[in-house]
Amino acid sequence: MAGNTIGNIFKLTTFGESHGPAIGGVIDGCPANITIDVDLIQRELDRRKPGQSNISTERKEEDQVEILSGIFEGKTLGTPIGFIIRNKDQRSKDYGDIKDVYRPSHADYVYQEKYGIRDYRGGGRSSARETACRVVAGAIAKQILTVKGIKITAFVSQIGDLELTDDYLDVDLSKIEDNVVRCPSAELAEEMIALISKVKEEGDSLGGMIHCVVGNPVIGLGEPVFDRLNADLAKAMFSINTVKGFELGSGFRSVSMRGSEHNDEFLVENGEVHTKTNYSGGIQGGISNGQHIYFNVGFKPVATISKAQNTVNVEGKSIQINVEGRHDACVVPRAVPIVEAMTAITILDHLLRLQTVQLK
Amino acid sequence: MAGNTIGNIFKLTTFGESHGPAIGGVIDGCPANITIDVDLIQRELDRRKPGQSNISTERKEEDQVEILSGIFEGKTLGTPIGFIIRNKDQRSKDYGDIKDVYRPSHADYVYQEKYGIRDYRGGGRSSARETACRVVAGAIAKQILTVKGIKITAFVSQIGDLELTDDYLDVDLSKIEDNVVRCPSAELAEEMIALISKVKEEGDSLGGMIHCVVGNPVIGLGEPVFDRLNADLAKAMFSINTVKGFELGSGFRSVSMRGSEHNDEFLVENGEVHTKTNYSGGIQGGISNGQHIYFNVGFKPVATISKAQNTVNVEGKSIQINVEGRHDACVVPRAVPIVEAMTAITILDHLLRLQTVQLK
Amino acid sequence: MAGNTIGNIFKLTTFGESHGPAIGGVIDGCPANITIDVDLIQRELDRRKPGQSNISTERKEEDQVEILSGIFEGKTLGTPIGFIIRNKDQRSKDYGDIKDVYRPSHADYVYQEKYGIRDYRGGGRSSARETACRVVAGAIAKQILTVKGIKITAFVSQIGDLELTDDYLDVDLSKIEDNVVRCPSAELAEEMIALISKVKEEGDSLGGMIHCVVGNPVIGLGEPVFDRLNADLAKAMFSINTVKGFELGSGFRSVSMRGSEHNDEFLVENGEVHTKTNYSGGIQGGISNGQHIYFNVGFKPVATISKAQNTVNVEGKSIQINVEGRHDACVVPRAVPIVEAMTAITILDHLLRLQTVQLK
Amino acid sequence: MAGNTIGNIFKLTTFGESHGPAIGGVIDGCPANITIDVDLIQRELDRRKPGQSNISTERKEEDQVEILSGIFEGKTLGTPIGFIIRNKDQRSKDYGDIKDVYRPSHADYVYQEKYGIRDYRGGGRSSARETACRVVAGAIAKQILTVKGIKITAFVSQIGDLELTDDYLDVDLSKIEDNVVRCPSAELAEEMIALISKVKEEGDSLGGMIHCVVGNPVIGLGEPVFDRLNADLAKAMFSINTVKGFELGSGFRSVSMRGSEHNDEFLVENGEVHTKTNYSGGIQGGISNGQHIYFNVGFKPVATISKAQNTVNVEGKSIQINVEGRHDACVVPRAVPIVEAMTAITILDHLLRLQTVQLK
Repeated sequence: MAGNTIGNIFKLTTFGESHGPAIGGVIDGCPANITIDVDLIQRELDRRKPGQSNISTERKEEDQVEILSGIFEGKTLGTPIGFIIRNKDQRSKDYGDIKDVYRPSHADYVYQEKYGIRDYRGGGRSSARETACRVVAGAIAKQILTVKGIKITAFVSQIGDLELTDDYLDVDLSKIEDNVVRCPSAELAEEMIALISKVKEEGDSLGGMIHCVVGNPVIGLGEPVFDRLNADLAKAMFSINTVKGFELGSGFRSVSMRGSEHNDEFLVENGEVHTKTNYSGGIQGGISNGQHIYFNVGFKPVATISKAQNTVNVEGKSIQINVEGRHDACVVPRAVPIVEAMTAITILDHLLRLQTVQLK
Repeated sequence: MAGNTIGNIFKLTTFGESHGPAIGGVIDGCPANITIDVDLIQRELDRRKPGQSNISTERKEEDQVEILSGIFEGKTLGTPIGFIIRNKDQRSKDYGDIKDVYRPSHADYVYQEKYGIRDYRGGGRSSARETACRVVAGAIAKQILTVKGIKITAFVSQIGDLELTDDYLDVDLSKIEDNVVRCPSAELAEEMIALISKVKEEGDSLGGMIHCVVGNPVIGLGEPVFDRLNADLAKAMFSINTVKGFELGSGFRSVSMRGSEHNDEFLVENGEVHTKTNYSGGIQGGISNGQHIYFNVGFKPVATISKAQNTVNVEGKSIQINVEGRHDACVVPRAVPIVEAMTAITILDHLLRLQTVQLK
Repeated sequence: MAGNTIGNIFKLTTFGESHGPAIGGVIDGCPANITIDVDLIQRELDRRKPGQSNISTERKEEDQVEILSGIFEGKTLGTPIGFIIRNKDQRSKDYGDIKDVYRPSHADYVYQEKYGIRDYRGGGRSSARETACRVVAGAIAKQILTVKGIKITAFVSQIGDLELTDDYLDVDLSKIEDNVVRCPSAELAEEMIALISKVKEEGDSLGGMIHCVVGNPVIGLGEPVFDRLNADLAKAMFSINTVKGFELGSGFRSVSMRGSEHNDEFLVENGEVHTKTNYSGGIQGGISNGQHIYFNVGFKPVATISKAQNTVNVEGKSIQINVEGRHDACVVPRAVPIVEAMTAITILDHLLRLQTVQLK
Repeated sequence: MAGNTIGNIFKLTTFGESHGPAIGGVIDGCPANITIDVDLIQRELDRRKPGQSNISTERKEEDQVEILSGIFEGKTLGTPIGFIIRNKDQRSKDYGDIKDVYRPSHADYVYQEKYGIRDYRGGGRSSARETACRVVAGAIAKQILTVKGIKITAFVSQIGDLELTDDYLDVDLSKIEDNVVRCPSAELAEEMIALISKVKEEGDSLGGMIHCVVGNPVIGLGEPVFDRLNADLAKAMFSINTVKGFELGSGFRSVSMRGSEHNDEFLVENGEVHTKTNYSGGIQGGISNGQHIYFNVGFKPVATISKAQNTVNVEGKSIQINVEGRHDACVVPRAVPIVEAMTAITILDHLLRLQTVQLK
């Protein structure tokens, strides 16, 4: 039983190999009669695409989305939204050398073992190119969430060991897009860029961290006991390539805290219930409490490096490989729109689920 | 759309409030014709139950499981396995004082807001008592995984700031059940017990960390692109009460590593493909590669403390509460069988999903 | 992947073998904060139970439902509703003779072949006893539909070749419960009862037809292109034991009609859109149009008969069997509450699905 | 919660409006490593397309399928198979006149009421054009079923009141494609063609019946108690436009039969268990027993006719309409490949479900 669908009411199914004719997706369950700006979808895709700067890969994929259904005269029909992105810059000759070899920490080996076959060209289905489809769906979800006043913002808080120590409440979130690494601190961004350039020259790669904030969430999102909002966010983030860690609110720091310190006391302000602190990260008992939802997503360094590595080939022989080609030394800045997209899809799905809790 | 089911083929649905007549569950999709030892189920339940030691709550719930269907003459029928656990020690008078007040960092407030009603007795559905049902299903899943030689082991690696720094490969996993905190280091366990006793006396609570290892996993578990094995493990862990963080393999440490350092080189030993290192935590591209799967689960300190706290009542008035009653200062040791159960359920579900990838 | 759950938002999972400790079910996704009369549930169960009259089987099962969760102080909590019905009158000795033989047109053979094991006592999971759980869920669904003014009524329109030829609009639906065969025509009911008695004496069995009407349905129920309301009703009916046919509105009669005759012209009455005729049976394009929904469900004669029959045993040898025991010659009257229950479950599920089509 | 996906393991999601850029679909869960002949897919599509003969609509849509993913070097990858069919012959001016009016027995009204918006061009999502996507998926499913020796054959058994009275066992199934109405009797086919031509000239439409047979099915298909094979077949058939009735095996005839007559006695032939008769239609207790599965599907006359009709417009005013354009007087012959496709999808889905019943 395959797993290319996420969501229960707002459901995204994606398809496509990186070097086949196209990648694409279908969104089923998008609410009807909502105005969608298709240009905004393309703009989000542009945030994710390779070749945005000289620290990114030089492939100039255009990643042009074509909406095939579900939107009519600028509005959602309530019918499935089908879309495709053609694969243009395929140059499959770059990948011929990996047809018979398993790249370390890549998915070549496990795909071959699981399916008994694989599209060896550039990662095929396991390529992060697939995430472009998520950005399309996320861009639609974001526009719908905007109707309810919900805003999702992610940024890079760490590259390698360069870490932004400020809390998200203390940084200027409007500055995120001012630099190519999507870090709200201009100075740290400079350092990060320098580090990525250096590591790129070494033929190596870097990990990083993304911090994401959901502003003005509706109260009541999340379906205990299994489909808690935090559980579904954790899954959504771990469905992104190269993610190794997820923590909500106080996260792993909470492990060494006391309950009396960690509990978020309730108080009333202007007739509304708030919490004094927000260690919970906006979710209690798996359900949003109306406070900001915030979390960290940790990314390992990408597996594709230019350095020589030892590995085995499909015949089980030890060999050394040198992977040529154009690759990002650090994909974390490009993952910012992906994190936002997966968050938006998850939040919207739960918003629609919430609509079924009471009989209308 | 509610969320009380987990799994896609091996599916567990649970029901029950902590102070209603019973909690229980239904497992649908359990493979047929497999021998199940019902006593082993009860033994797992006993690992989770309150009152195992004097550092735990003194409630002496018996947590006796009754299997109602799906097992006949000691074997699974392939039909749904229904089971219940009666709620015996209800003493609902203990909870009358919280009928009209929202306990800080508890789910009282969000349940009331989401559903417009709540069973205020002892947390109702949001009580961790529900996890007993997961332990039942996990005990069945474990027995089935044993047929395939797969073994799941979890232990406490941290309580408060007392941290086991050894790698799981360097500790003796057979010692876990030797002490009430389920830490394989006897000395550290002593310290942890002392710390919990101290904090209990203070009326406060403690967080902790559980480390879990899946030994001898089948290759090929996990369904990209969304239902990756790591994504489903992350969700399963975050579906447990009080979990705040999850990291696989190298986890958040990977953020500051280089690709050349982090990549797990393949090598061949005795004709079998292995990896030299295992930073991946046994999962690449969302699919198990046959190496050990290991991960950390971080738990916040439980919200129930005896200290006075400020909060609001259902009428939106600020008040101070003192929650009386018998509570664990640290639930992490009792969460060990729950982590194992959720892991077993997730692994078995993916094992059965794998059976559909090839036409037989 | 098993199939013991029906519904997508209002979801019923059932469990239990006919001669195990209990049968039961879990309803997940029941809307919160709705008043439920538990006595009405029991009353619906009583309509289904065996032994209601001397034409029915003489087993006096009490079929007492126990609600275990999800209803608190008379209202739904929005949490799963778990319930069980103990199996009391088990007399498993009656069934020892069928342990090693496959009864013709029963499920013994296919269960053994599919699962490699079966509970041979009285049909086990394949027994129609399981439908009692559906009646429980249906009784809850009905009460919720009543809030929206939707009323579901089924009756027996044929037993053997005794057929009620009147349209449902021309019979008095208040008379259905006046006789044990649940036929609104008193005279025909007399004949049916006589026929059943005669056939019972012969040790044979009879089929029949149930007609069901959904009054005052909401417009918009049904989710094209696959989960059309008619498709889900068809599935729900065919999930009932011994059903062999389903037709909506004009049904098979429409095959020989012309479009000009069959089309339901729209007209406006008191500002509301209606159709002049209702050959569509209240559903167009898979979506309810607000007119009555009505359909026929055809039941074959039950397989359990007292006459001698040829068959094979588990060793593949031809043998003759004489099934002893207490059985209904015609189960169709007892299937009336089951048809109503499955209809109610389906309609309520779609009512809740409809609540997600527009962003609220 | 929308409903554009069918299947649980072999899952088809379709998208597309009849006059948008394209229709298409995604198959998730297709078994890996199976050879697929793409030409056979196109040939099935050609069986469904309009304009095959002069009794069909004159629209010459090419219905050219483009496979976008999931098939590599002629074999399935186990990844999702995405495909599209461009809408070429759109002529949307033909449909401008129905923008503001609800055609009788069409889905215009219910779509507008349900979604608050509709693509009024030619039926939009409610157009039967969507079924072309099912034929694509069905053509893939058929090729996979062929590997297991399972063969699905459907034919027209009735048009209007012209009825083929022979049993499927007594007709030559190899003759079905010999005539444009897909009736295996050449003489009856002549009469049917004449009838359709006559009714077409009158501007009216005709219903019909399709009989479908699954040859050589595997034993064990079907998942009680809800996802019985018959229940899922009933749903699959009722998900096809204009279907009004479904009956399995003896169907509605069984209503007036006795159990002693209807029961299918088991016997042993060459060491294999068979049934002497097959009133059950190859399914007992919801599970296939290895005998032929056969069923009838009844289609009403299509709603699109050229005769003047009374109806209402979007402002609720009564008006008369004359729908111009090119339409089929009888779609039943073109529905034959659709019935086969939906059957193949359902059977394959259950074949894969069966693979999870036993632990391998």
